[in-house]
Amino acid sequence: MKFAEKLLAASKKNRSLLCVGLDPDPDLMPRVGLFEFNKAIIDATVDLVCAYKPNLAFYEASGIEGIEALYQTIHYIPSHIPIIGDAKRGDIGNTAKAYARALFDTLGCDAVTVSPYLGFDSLEPFIEYEDRGVFILCRTSNPGAQDFQSLVDAEGVPLYQRVARKANEWNGRGNIGLVVGATYPEELKQVRILCPDMLLLIPGVGTQGGDLQESVKYGIDSLGEKAILAVSRQILYASQGKAFNQSARHSAQEIRDKINVRIDSTEAT
Amino acid sequence: MKFAEKLLAASKKNRSLLCVGLDPDPDLMPRVGLFEFNKAIIDATVDLVCAYKPNLAFYEASGIEGIEALYQTIHYIPSHIPIIGDAKRGDIGNTAKAYARALFDTLGCDAVTVSPYLGFDSLEPFIEYEDRGVFILCRTSNPGAQDFQSLVDAEGVPLYQRVARKANEWNGRGNIGLVVGATYPEELKQVRILCPDMLLLIPGVGTQGGDLQESVKYGIDSLGEKAILAVSRQILYASQGKAFNQSARHSAQEIRDKINVRIDSTEAT
Repeated sequence: MKFAEKLLAASKKNRSLLCVGLDPDPDLMPRVGLFEFNKAIIDATVDLVCAYKPNLAFYEASGIEGIEALYQTIHYIPSHIPIIGDAKRGDIGNTAKAYARALFDTLGCDAVTVSPYLGFDSLEPFIEYEDRGVFILCRTSNPGAQDFQSLVDAEGVPLYQRVARKANEWNGRGNIGLVVGATYPEELKQVRILCPDMLLLIPGVGTQGGDLQESVKYGIDSLGEKAILAVSRQILYASQGKAFNQSARHSAQEIRDKINVRIDSTEAT
Repeated sequence: MKFAEKLLAASKKNRSLLCVGLDPDPDLMPRVGLFEFNKAIIDATVDLVCAYKPNLAFYEASGIEGIEALYQTIHYIPSHIPIIGDAKRGDIGNTAKAYARALFDTLGCDAVTVSPYLGFDSLEPFIEYEDRGVFILCRTSNPGAQDFQSLVDAEGVPLYQRVARKANEWNGRGNIGLVVGATYPEELKQVRILCPDMLLLIPGVGTQGGDLQESVKYGIDSLGEKAILAVSRQILYASQGKAFNQSARHSAQEIRDKINVRIDSTEAT
C-alpha cells in the first residue's frame, strides 16, 4: 500500500490528523527507559493518531541503547499506523542511497523527513521508493528558519517557496510532502496555495507556540485532509508523575478533537 | 585541545591535508565486516592523513551492527588523529541539542558536518562545544547543489555565499568551518575570498571528478593550510582483492604527495 493511502486509512479509522512525535528526552521524561516510555505513550494514544513520528536525534543521543529502543519502538507500533522517521537527512546521491536504505529498508519507516539544501540528487534515492512518503523541509517551525528560508531571489520568490515549487516538479510519483511549521501561518497559507494537493506535515503547535486553529485552517486541503499536525512535547510531557500516560492521552484527545472541530467549521464556511 | 589545533598538529606530523572518508559500502568493498575493513584502511593510512571522516549513512544502513562498527572505528582511530563525523544534521534548537550530544558526547567526534537550511538556532548547540569543529554545508560537491545553493537573491548574492557570510558572523568562537565541493572550483575560490581564515572541508576530488590541483590552489589559505581534502572511494576502493589495503595506501600516498607538491608550487608563485 502506498504511504498516502495508509495514512488516510489510519486517519479515517481514528478520525484524526494528529501525529504524535515520539521524542523521548531523559531531561523531561519520567525515569523509565526510552522504549518503556514510548510503549506507554503508544498504548495511551494508538486510537487517537494518524501517524507516529520518532525523531532520530533523541535515540542517537543515547548511543547503541538508544538505537535499540528506536527499533523496538518501530516494531511495537501497530502495522496500520504509519511511521514517519524524522531524520532530516540530506547528502550527495551515493550517500543518500545509503540513508534511504537505512530509513526505509533497515529501520522500516513508512515515510521520512529530508532536507533540500543539496538539491534533487540528494532526494531522488528516497523518492524512488514509490510506496514510501518523503517530506521535504520547506518552512521549518524554528526562529532560525528566517536566516535562509526567507531569502528572496531576484524574481521575488523566497527560498521556501522555491522548495515548494521544485517539490511540485519532482512529484511525478505522488509521494512527496512538505514540512511547514505551524509557527508561520502566513507561509503555510502560501505553501497550500502553491501545492493544493500535497501532504503537509505541520510541526510547531503546542510548546513551540504555533496556533492550532490557523494551522488547520491553512494546512488542510479542500477536502479537509492532507495535513498532519505533529505534536510532541505538549503530549509526551503533559505531566511528569506516574500517570504521565493518562495525561498524554488526555492531551492528545483534546488536540485531536480541537482539530476536528476546526475542520468542521472550515468546511461549513 | 581545540579542534583546529588538533587538526594542525596531525597535519604537520603527517605532512598532510588529506582526510580519508571512512564510507564502507558493502556493494564496493571486499567481503569483510565494516569494522574489519575500516581497521585495515586505518592501519594502511594512519601516517598519511590529517583526519578521518566516517559518513554515518554507511553505518546506519547496516542497522545496529553498523552503528556498533562505527563506535568500534571511532575508538580504534589513534587519539592524535581528529575525527570528523560526516552527519549533515540540521534540526530545530531543542532537537539539535540532542544531535550535538549524540555526535560529540556519545559518539566522541572531534568535529561534525551540519546543514544550514534551518538557520542559526539549529547550529548553535553544535557551535557551543568550543573545543569541537562545526563544518557547515556551503557549496556541496553534487550536481543538485545548483538547485538551491546557486539561487541569487535580490542583492545579487547566491545562497551558498549567504551561508559563507553568516558563517563568518557566527564564528565568534573560531570553531566554524565550511564544506565546499572540489567539483565547483570557482565557488571554492569565492568562498576562500569571503572567508580567508576559515577551515574548508573539500570533498569531491577523485571519483566525483573534482580537480585536485585547483582545489588545493583555491582551497588553502595564505599559509598553505586550513584546507582539508576529503577523499573516500578513490582510496577505499583502489582495488578489490586481498591487497585492498596496500592499494589504499598507495592511492592515499599519491594524493597526499600531489597536494603537497601543489602547495609548494602555489607558495613559490
